[in-house]
Amino acid sequence: MNKIDQKIKVKRAPKRGQYDTETIHRILDRDFLCHVGFIHEDYPVVIPTLYGRLNNQLYLHGSNASRMIKDLKKGIPVSLTVTKVDGLVLARSAFHHSMNYESVVVFGNAEFVDDPSEKLIALKVLSDQIIQNRWEEVREPNEKEMKATTVLKISLDKASAKIRKGGPVDDKDDYALSVWAGEIPISQKYGLPIPDELMDSEIKVPSSVNKIMKGLEK
Amino acid sequence: MNKIDQKIKVKRAPKRGQYDTETIHRILDRDFLCHVGFIHEDYPVVIPTLYGRLNNQLYLHGSNASRMIKDLKKGIPVSLTVTKVDGLVLARSAFHHSMNYESVVVFGNAEFVDDPSEKLIALKVLSDQIIQNRWEEVREPNEKEMKATTVLKISLDKASAKIRKGGPVDDKDDYALSVWAGEIPISQKYGLPIPDELMDSEIKVPSSVNKIMKGLEK
Repeated sequence: MNKIDQKIKVKRAPKRGQYDTETIHRILDRDFLCHVGFIHEDYPVVIPTLYGRLNNQLYLHGSNASRMIKDLKKGIPVSLTVTKVDGLVLARSAFHHSMNYESVVVFGNAEFVDDPSEKLIALKVLSDQIIQNRWEEVREPNEKEMKATTVLKISLDKASAKIRKGGPVDDKDDYALSVWAGEIPISQKYGLPIPDELMDSEIKVPSSVNKIMKGLEK
Repeated sequence: MNKIDQKIKVKRAPKRGQYDTETIHRILDRDFLCHVGFIHEDYPVVIPTLYGRLNNQLYLHGSNASRMIKDLKKGIPVSLTVTKVDGLVLARSAFHHSMNYESVVVFGNAEFVDDPSEKLIALKVLSDQIIQNRWEEVREPNEKEMKATTVLKISLDKASAKIRKGGPVDDKDDYALSVWAGEIPISQKYGLPIPDELMDSEIKVPSSVNKIMKGLEK
């Protein structure tokens, strides 16, 4: 194993480690926000940013002027993490309290997307990751906007997932304690859409929004 | 300004930058999960972990065997980020789509908490950050558990916040388009508590759980 292969191995609680592509894609498709880590002038920096998945790669985008985008464009090493918290796990002892979650950690190097047609596809993928088919309802980017935006891609070849689910696991003796134990599920929900005040009130909520409102979470 | 002072300045969209302690504490108190970035063998690593805030510092904890804990204990530079997504911002153009969010980025070096009484306080602070007063309902850590756990602290002296809120801001000409625009709020909610199957069903849901169920989000 080279250095990177070692790195993606789940070290703590290795039985929670998952490496199959299907699991990694499924977890990534539950969210649209990742935390990107990179080294800037010898210091680690962690920045929240949007992503979109297409096949076995992620697209990122940002303003040409973004420090993160400028750094990542150089092809420096990147660590990218997505975490979905699914619940609190309340045990009988403080020590055995835990969280239910699914997370993915990706190691790699960003690659600059230069080809205009791939760049446009990437921007639609990023849009679809947040809200499917919104892209078809709005004005597409014009030349000036395309020029102001940088798109990068990162392969998912070096990714691993970590999952914890289920109830608490207590020390044998603690099961006799008269302490409530169990799980408290956590999920994300959408509130009712708030129309822009500057919009003609005759314009109806579009199908892209209706669709995510029907789903329970992204 | 030294290197770190430069680093905490919000670079992109500087008008979204906030630096006052009150704002930083308020955002940190909305959550309990952060993403910690550090450099391991020349590579950036980003790991999700729990935190607890006490005054102007954050406590982290983990198993003595955790790679992250072992690395951070050495006092290496750390970047720690907390992000709360508050909504989707749907504009009339693809380009002006955005997110409402509040985030905090902390730069610093972790400090090992050696003193047993501070260590115990830190563990209660971490517990309270997730679910207030749960600590008083459960068995406290025994000596073996205390020994197996490492507690670290990071000062909030080098922290900055970034906030976006409100509706979309479109290009002047686009306001004439017949496209729905507005915000879709996103929040976290707790589901109904799931009691541990191995628990005496006579044991009632405790006040700590009832309290978070009444709140709309953490």
